[in-house]
Amino acid sequence: MGEHIVTSFDQELGEIDRLIRRMSELAGQMISAATAALLGSDMAAAQRVISDDTLMDASQRDLDERVITLIAKRQPMAQDLRTVVGALRMAADLERIGDLAKNVAKRVGAVGEAASPRTLSHSIETMAQMVMEQLDETIEAYVGRRPDDLAALRAGDEKIDVKYTAIFRELLTYMMEDPRNITACTHLLFCAKNLERIGDHATNIAENGYFMITGQQLPLQRPKTDETVALRGA
Amino acid sequence: MGEHIVTSFDQELGEIDRLIRRMSELAGQMISAATAALLGSDMAAAQRVISDDTLMDASQRDLDERVITLIAKRQPMAQDLRTVVGALRMAADLERIGDLAKNVAKRVGAVGEAASPRTLSHSIETMAQMVMEQLDETIEAYVGRRPDDLAALRAGDEKIDVKYTAIFRELLTYMMEDPRNITACTHLLFCAKNLERIGDHATNIAENGYFMITGQQLPLQRPKTDETVALRGA
Repeated sequence: MGEHIVTSFDQELGEIDRLIRRMSELAGQMISAATAALLGSDMAAAQRVISDDTLMDASQRDLDERVITLIAKRQPMAQDLRTVVGALRMAADLERIGDLAKNVAKRVGAVGEAASPRTLSHSIETMAQMVMEQLDETIEAYVGRRPDDLAALRAGDEKIDVKYTAIFRELLTYMMEDPRNITACTHLLFCAKNLERIGDHATNIAENGYFMITGQQLPLQRPKTDETVALRGA
Repeated sequence: MGEHIVTSFDQELGEIDRLIRRMSELAGQMISAATAALLGSDMAAAQRVISDDTLMDASQRDLDERVITLIAKRQPMAQDLRTVVGALRMAADLERIGDLAKNVAKRVGAVGEAASPRTLSHSIETMAQMVMEQLDETIEAYVGRRPDDLAALRAGDEKIDVKYTAIFRELLTYMMEDPRNITACTHLLFCAKNLERIGDHATNIAENGYFMITGQQLPLQRPKTDETVALRGA
């Protein structure tokens, strides 16, 4: 009987994992499409990303409802409860990632076809790629129940932060060179910041996933730093 | 017996309310101190805000643990569960508000004693004040179980967004006037954006609190918009 309950619980947890993976796939598509729309000044593509965010919100509500039903039906004990509550947090991080991708899409019109140098476009594209890989690997490591990989993935976020700092400096330089660049570069600055925040949420997911699998907090939580907050001058 | 359980549940929910109010008070102090530190270039005060954030993180962990213990002990049914899960969300919003205030404090050094015009300082101070009132009134309406007030409070966030848009335009103007202002103004832009985000989190808290009290979603969720995403030129 106890065995049966545990199995059903695990099955339902597996169902929740599938929803998490689906949210993560949608988030990845949104990041990719928003970045492409930004760099190609594609307003129609940007609009599709903005619409996709409602799917993301609906997925989070689905997942929340499923978790609440699971708790009410199975009445899991403390450790299992922590795991299930962790799923709510993971869904919240994924929903927020969708929001951040949507925000990048919303800036496509304001950035316009500003003659952003090729090196800058390349930097933003690279950063978006890093962020998508980070998210994808994190979710796969969580769904595959590989806590050591989740612990190792935190190092990936540091590389994203370094990239963000480089882009931040680059953008300040363009603004100083020509004041006509200021508005577009300001929006690009927020876009880069959004990508950096997505990396932070992937780190949250890794730490949370580690806790859900092992019941332990990851030792020495890496501080989520934005090095640019201390940059004076460019 | 049923009566007794309900009463204990409500008592423990009251205990959770007290923790939420304490987190909100700390968040308000952090916003106030971070803004004062920013406008007065007070590095020591900024450092205290940064330290306070660890208290905020600890409070969230406390609250999460208390909620998990409450669920495990009382095994509440679906509607009560939704309320309790709502408390987890509220704590997450408050923790994030603390993070955003900390981020303002971290930028104090980078903004430096940039000769920011008096009108700009005044605008930022006013915006911080609006945000603090919004948060405080929201938490009081929630703790006082006044759902109509929570519904009404959403209008307050629109005023904050209007203020943010004005500050955004003002900052772009200073950058264009003198490129030497660019770095400091960029950091101030992120500070203003953080205040705007705090307003969004207060709105989340109002909507979530309304749901916790009434079991109903607020009709026609006000879209959390950042009007500046579409601003081309200043």
